[in-house]
Amino acid sequence: MNDLRLNQDAANADLATASNVAEQLASMQAADAVELLNELDVEDAVGILAEMPRDHAVLILDQPELHSSAEIIAELPPVIARELLDAMSADRVTDIFQQFDDETRIRLAASLGQETKAALRKLLHYPPHTAGSLMTTEFVSVPANWSVAATLQHIREVERSRETIYAIYVTDPRTKGLLRAVALRRLITSEPNDSIMSVGRDVAPVTVGPLTDQEDVARLFRKHDLLAVPVVNDDNHIIGIVTVDDVIDAMTQEMTEDTLKFGGMEALNKPYMQIGFVQMLRKRAGWLGVLFLSEMLTASAMQYFEGELEKAVVLTLFIPLIMSSGGNSGSQATSLLIRALALQELRLKDWWRVALRELPTGLALGSFLGMIGIIRITTWQMAGLYNYGPHWMLIAATVGAALIGIVTFGSLVGSMLPFILQKIGFDPASASAPFVATLVDVTGLVIYFSIALVFLSGTLL
Amino acid sequence: MNDLRLNQDAANADLATASNVAEQLASMQAADAVELLNELDVEDAVGILAEMPRDHAVLILDQPELHSSAEIIAELPPVIARELLDAMSADRVTDIFQQFDDETRIRLAASLGQETKAALRKLLHYPPHTAGSLMTTEFVSVPANWSVAATLQHIREVERSRETIYAIYVTDPRTKGLLRAVALRRLITSEPNDSIMSVGRDVAPVTVGPLTDQEDVARLFRKHDLLAVPVVNDDNHIIGIVTVDDVIDAMTQEMTEDTLKFGGMEALNKPYMQIGFVQMLRKRAGWLGVLFLSEMLTASAMQYFEGELEKAVVLTLFIPLIMSSGGNSGSQATSLLIRALALQELRLKDWWRVALRELPTGLALGSFLGMIGIIRITTWQMAGLYNYGPHWMLIAATVGAALIGIVTFGSLVGSMLPFILQKIGFDPASASAPFVATLVDVTGLVIYFSIALVFLSGTLL
Repeated sequence: MNDLRLNQDAANADLATASNVAEQLASMQAADAVELLNELDVEDAVGILAEMPRDHAVLILDQPELHSSAEIIAELPPVIARELLDAMSADRVTDIFQQFDDETRIRLAASLGQETKAALRKLLHYPPHTAGSLMTTEFVSVPANWSVAATLQHIREVERSRETIYAIYVTDPRTKGLLRAVALRRLITSEPNDSIMSVGRDVAPVTVGPLTDQEDVARLFRKHDLLAVPVVNDDNHIIGIVTVDDVIDAMTQEMTEDTLKFGGMEALNKPYMQIGFVQMLRKRAGWLGVLFLSEMLTASAMQYFEGELEKAVVLTLFIPLIMSSGGNSGSQATSLLIRALALQELRLKDWWRVALRELPTGLALGSFLGMIGIIRITTWQMAGLYNYGPHWMLIAATVGAALIGIVTFGSLVGSMLPFILQKIGFDPASASAPFVATLVDVTGLVIYFSIALVFLSGTLL
Repeated sequence: MNDLRLNQDAANADLATASNVAEQLASMQAADAVELLNELDVEDAVGILAEMPRDHAVLILDQPELHSSAEIIAELPPVIARELLDAMSADRVTDIFQQFDDETRIRLAASLGQETKAALRKLLHYPPHTAGSLMTTEFVSVPANWSVAATLQHIREVERSRETIYAIYVTDPRTKGLLRAVALRRLITSEPNDSIMSVGRDVAPVTVGPLTDQEDVARLFRKHDLLAVPVVNDDNHIIGIVTVDDVIDAMTQEMTEDTLKFGGMEALNKPYMQIGFVQMLRKRAGWLGVLFLSEMLTASAMQYFEGELEKAVVLTLFIPLIMSSGGNSGSQATSLLIRALALQELRLKDWWRVALRELPTGLALGSFLGMIGIIRITTWQMAGLYNYGPHWMLIAATVGAALIGIVTFGSLVGSMLPFILQKIGFDPASASAPFVATLVDVTGLVIYFSIALVFLSGTLL
């Protein structure tokens, strides 16, 4: 790899080597150039980008994967910074402005072109995870009374400054409302003199609002195989577009967040090795503390059954086994339902169908584990590996019955939790495996000891 | 909603209503039409699709979201079925052929056009989850000695039969090797008489092989913001393309599989409500059984410490609390590392960096929980809520120290497991929260009792 050589070149970079490296980078895919720049110090990256042809520097700065792009732009000579910001895509400029400190934000905003300024003002106020925060204002739109030829000519003129030209949005010349989305592929195969409204199928375009959640945006892309979706306001005026590359980034981000949440922690906003030690502790300690406090109820439950515990210490041997089985079956059910709800295979109103399915499933799985448990105890007893005492058969029966009860309970709780979260307005994907396990643990103990009281009272208890 | 009306219309569908419904569907987005068709019986859907303009039926059948598309095509009049299959995209036809029974496959394959047959032969033999299984053979490629005008003319002629025309692949006229990928947007803004090789930047195109894993394909799309990627063989001949809509579907599928695996079960191949009861049991019982068998080691560990248990029943009160904390911290660390490896923020060789980070993190988190635990015991004791005996301070110290040990151990095991899985050739995302919890549980018990032996021998033990 030439990462290392490049790194060293840049380490003692004077202008000559910077322009040298700039030339090398210009012959690469922008994303590969980004990876190399990410290895360098900010000041070296600044030197190289300043030496690069502007249009190629724009390609590189447009990549969200470039670390410290805000610092780089802040340190570039102001003339160059302004030129680049005006040429970059508006959604990316917005992301970068959000990272500037106040002084830099004011300094650079003042020098921007009118169009970029207007776009920034529009885009900066949408909350994260919404279509508005993903969108860009650089789209192609033409009035409905234009011809195919006029539209194509317009596209040729504005192509450089548009995020995508593969979807053309046709608006009502009077109301400015969005009428139709036309695919470029249909446009170039149409007769030049035809009206733009004659191109493609006459169907209402798929649209989103600026506050549509990014997960719903992604669902629409998946469903309709879109390359871009127009964002419209209440008057059906198009205010921006979300393109498929931003949707893929959003999906990846959602996937990371959902995995971390399911693992029982807060989502991080930076890569693992870049997050500070204290921040990492905060993201993990919160949920860990909440779970610990809830799990303390198990100690209370055990204290409540201390009499039984003292009389039958043998019962304690199976506590971890039984409790973990409840947590495991709950975790399975939760992961199933999180995805079924995310993919909208199921709706909130289907909760009872799921409950009716999880009940027999839990009973069957519990019986399966209960059987293994009984076989285990019997085998150890018969083979003389351990002596569970004269009432070992009753103990085996207790363990078997408890497993049926706890696995069924775990499956039910695990499957209902995502519904409950959705019902009270949370993302079903906020359900975490540790949380389900904790919910099941306390009740699991109560189930276990209650069954023991029924089976063993008069003998052991 | 008019789902219901449509449903009833179709229920007593004669030819007249079928053509009526067909007309309604033709004015909708194809994906919406698919949702309505999914509500109907196969025979009603067959009647409606047969009545529809062919090009619109193709749009609908091209949607992977249409359930039972294989059954529908099998039941269509053979002439119509052949016409539709020849017009559909080759990757979709391949998916559908994989679902046919042998009789239908042979019957329909015989009647297909040459081009479709050739594509099917090519595509049918790639394993799932590879670029080959996602790709289609309907792409635009032109020799490098063509002009921009000739290329545009060619695109106009073949547009209807191509999956995408937004990327044009330029090949060496002699070797047929892939030289360049040209974006249509650059093409339409170029001079008609220029050579196709003068369009766009002179960089090597991003390519994949037919056996490239679909996760790696998705990573390339994300990195390079692609709309399509060419699939090339060992001779650098382009044999197909993967388009962004298929990548989004693959990402969604991967996300579902990874979530289910992290939840501790096998991935399903069907939506929750459509999977049979027995199949659902199988997908869940496998891992549940394995985890149960592993967790049995906790019973063995407890049996080993039975002497201590009998002497100090008070120790059992905190077993669920302590064990779950180890599992929870392990689950957090695993979810973190699964994502860091999936996003390639970290490589296999970085394992020791992670271990060096998780060690202090685990110690800090364990101390935090240990502190809460000690406060809990002290408070209950002081407030007279429970009597832990004369040695309650030693018990509190035992619980606190055990939490530090177990949370540190959990964080280490949880963070190393994804690395180990990757090292031995598995997907790091195969690590599941229940599996980590089980790994930690047994060792957790040993840690707890060992610390108890140190702290309490001479007093309680």
